[in-house]
Amino acid sequence: MRTVNAYAAPSATGPIGKTTIERRDVGPKDVMIEIAYSGICHSDIHMIRGDWGPIQYPLVVGHEIVGTVSEIGSEVTKYQVGDHVGVGCMVNSCGECEYCERGDEQYCVKGNTQTYNGIDPVDGTITQGGYSQAIVVTEDFVVRVPENLAFDKAAPLLCAGVSLYSPLRHWQAGPGKKVAIVGLGGLGHMGVKIAAALGADVTVFSQTTSKREDSLRFGATAHYATADPENFTQLANSFDLIINTVSAKIDMGAFLGLLKVDGTLVNVGAPAEPLEVPAFALIPSRRSWAGSSIGGIRETQEMLDFCAEHGIVPETELISADDIDNAYERVLKSDVRYRFVIDAATFA
Amino acid sequence: MRTVNAYAAPSATGPIGKTTIERRDVGPKDVMIEIAYSGICHSDIHMIRGDWGPIQYPLVVGHEIVGTVSEIGSEVTKYQVGDHVGVGCMVNSCGECEYCERGDEQYCVKGNTQTYNGIDPVDGTITQGGYSQAIVVTEDFVVRVPENLAFDKAAPLLCAGVSLYSPLRHWQAGPGKKVAIVGLGGLGHMGVKIAAALGADVTVFSQTTSKREDSLRFGATAHYATADPENFTQLANSFDLIINTVSAKIDMGAFLGLLKVDGTLVNVGAPAEPLEVPAFALIPSRRSWAGSSIGGIRETQEMLDFCAEHGIVPETELISADDIDNAYERVLKSDVRYRFVIDAATFA
Repeated sequence: MRTVNAYAAPSATGPIGKTTIERRDVGPKDVMIEIAYSGICHSDIHMIRGDWGPIQYPLVVGHEIVGTVSEIGSEVTKYQVGDHVGVGCMVNSCGECEYCERGDEQYCVKGNTQTYNGIDPVDGTITQGGYSQAIVVTEDFVVRVPENLAFDKAAPLLCAGVSLYSPLRHWQAGPGKKVAIVGLGGLGHMGVKIAAALGADVTVFSQTTSKREDSLRFGATAHYATADPENFTQLANSFDLIINTVSAKIDMGAFLGLLKVDGTLVNVGAPAEPLEVPAFALIPSRRSWAGSSIGGIRETQEMLDFCAEHGIVPETELISADDIDNAYERVLKSDVRYRFVIDAATFA
Repeated sequence: MRTVNAYAAPSATGPIGKTTIERRDVGPKDVMIEIAYSGICHSDIHMIRGDWGPIQYPLVVGHEIVGTVSEIGSEVTKYQVGDHVGVGCMVNSCGECEYCERGDEQYCVKGNTQTYNGIDPVDGTITQGGYSQAIVVTEDFVVRVPENLAFDKAAPLLCAGVSLYSPLRHWQAGPGKKVAIVGLGGLGHMGVKIAAALGADVTVFSQTTSKREDSLRFGATAHYATADPENFTQLANSFDLIINTVSAKIDMGAFLGLLKVDGTLVNVGAPAEPLEVPAFALIPSRRSWAGSSIGGIRETQEMLDFCAEHGIVPETELISADDIDNAYERVLKSDVRYRFVIDAATFA
């Protein structure tokens, strides 16, 4: 075991504070990673505050992790000491079900092991995440960070990046396709960049037009305010694919009405309350409403390679460990353009 | 113009009564059909009662029509006098949009012309449906009834049959696929027969187990009562495809939970009120909720040929015109196994 510094939530409401946690010894298939940067995801806040059910405190969150391999197990074949690697939202799965076998570990029938607040199948402990100096993960859930990807900006790709890349690929965003991204936050801005790089014609729907210049800079061809109902009339039946990154109630009938025949609206944002959806928004145009959760490990690697090839990185603001609580407040107010990344050197 | 007998709704609540309507002269591309049988669809009742918006009375409903060609226009090439033919839910469309061009006339961007309560592009009149002695329709919206398909039972295939055939084909029901049909009524029982003939493993969800023997007789391998919550636990993550034929609010979270990863629930029944759907029922298994509306003309012909080949006909109860009001009451009480067909000889 190794004791490392970490920043933990002591309760649903208490400030994030410095503490220490134990990392298990490196097993035969494990990789020890010295964390360099750790992204802040809105999920971190939801989890800490108990929005998704009760949890056990203290908890170290963080599932957008990049770092350098410092030790490898005797059977590790994919990584060497010194490699730049990443860890996302999951650190294990059953490995045997049809979904694990086809590379969709996120949909493991037994449930994947989440990077924090999961139960580690290796030692039965509750998993602790990336707001820490180091982490030990089985190599199968580690991905390689390409050398030409800015290391201090890569962390958010491990959740925000792949959460958008996966549905954009699954529903075949590309040349000739009209794609809309709803919400221009941490997830949404990655969606714009990736969809544009895939060759799709990208439109952003945001509450106002205040971020229009950003949308266009990220690769969108249009940006509309959801506050103006006229936009929904004008753009009815226009899109092949809409990715909804908003974790709040939206007017589903209005957004579904933007889809062409056979179009799909995909939620990657998860409001706690059910959404009210009129069946008449689906039936007359054979539209679909779907959900998507992160991506598989192979797909996460593919996404990192794609981003490196296309020069795609998130817009980030680098903060120190002491800034986490303040950053959370700003995330909740949507006052971040577009993702906070913690410099893990400040965990020391 | 030709005057024919018809049975019309005089108002939202008045009894269906005998009247006469005018059918237009047969144009160059038109076919005159002497109606033999006309099915009763729940939509007829919704439309008459104004459930889907105000309408103009008197209205002759009926969009499950079979009959014999009695006259053809000078440019008609597909049909001859004496042919057995059918007409379903639509009688025209723009013919030029991408959906019409690919044979999905039901999704015409300008809206298809419904068989009743539509505005006929030929003469601007409000279309009047199948509860009548004869109808004039452009040959492109007429399908051929195979000779080996029981003529007195074929009518419901034109709406109930194709409404299930189309989504079952679109979402690839077939060998190795587990399909559930929710609701064993006019639509649902066709879904069971067609899905089984396509080679899928079919399960029925009905309010109670009272129709279990029917389900099995129609080709299902299992029948479960939706009233028992234990069934939803036991069958979680089991189905590739669920077709929901119920036009009322159901517990969408529970039904979506029955789907496997990447499974789809398709509504062909359209409740007037929005359904409350938890995004968490979709996201963790990349499930979809979709809608589907009837089928295209080419697909309707394909369905009729498929039913003839596989000996599939609806379970029908033949009634006379005087029984229509009583039949409506029984439809509303789900007291029909499984579709009423009016003998058009009684319109005389």
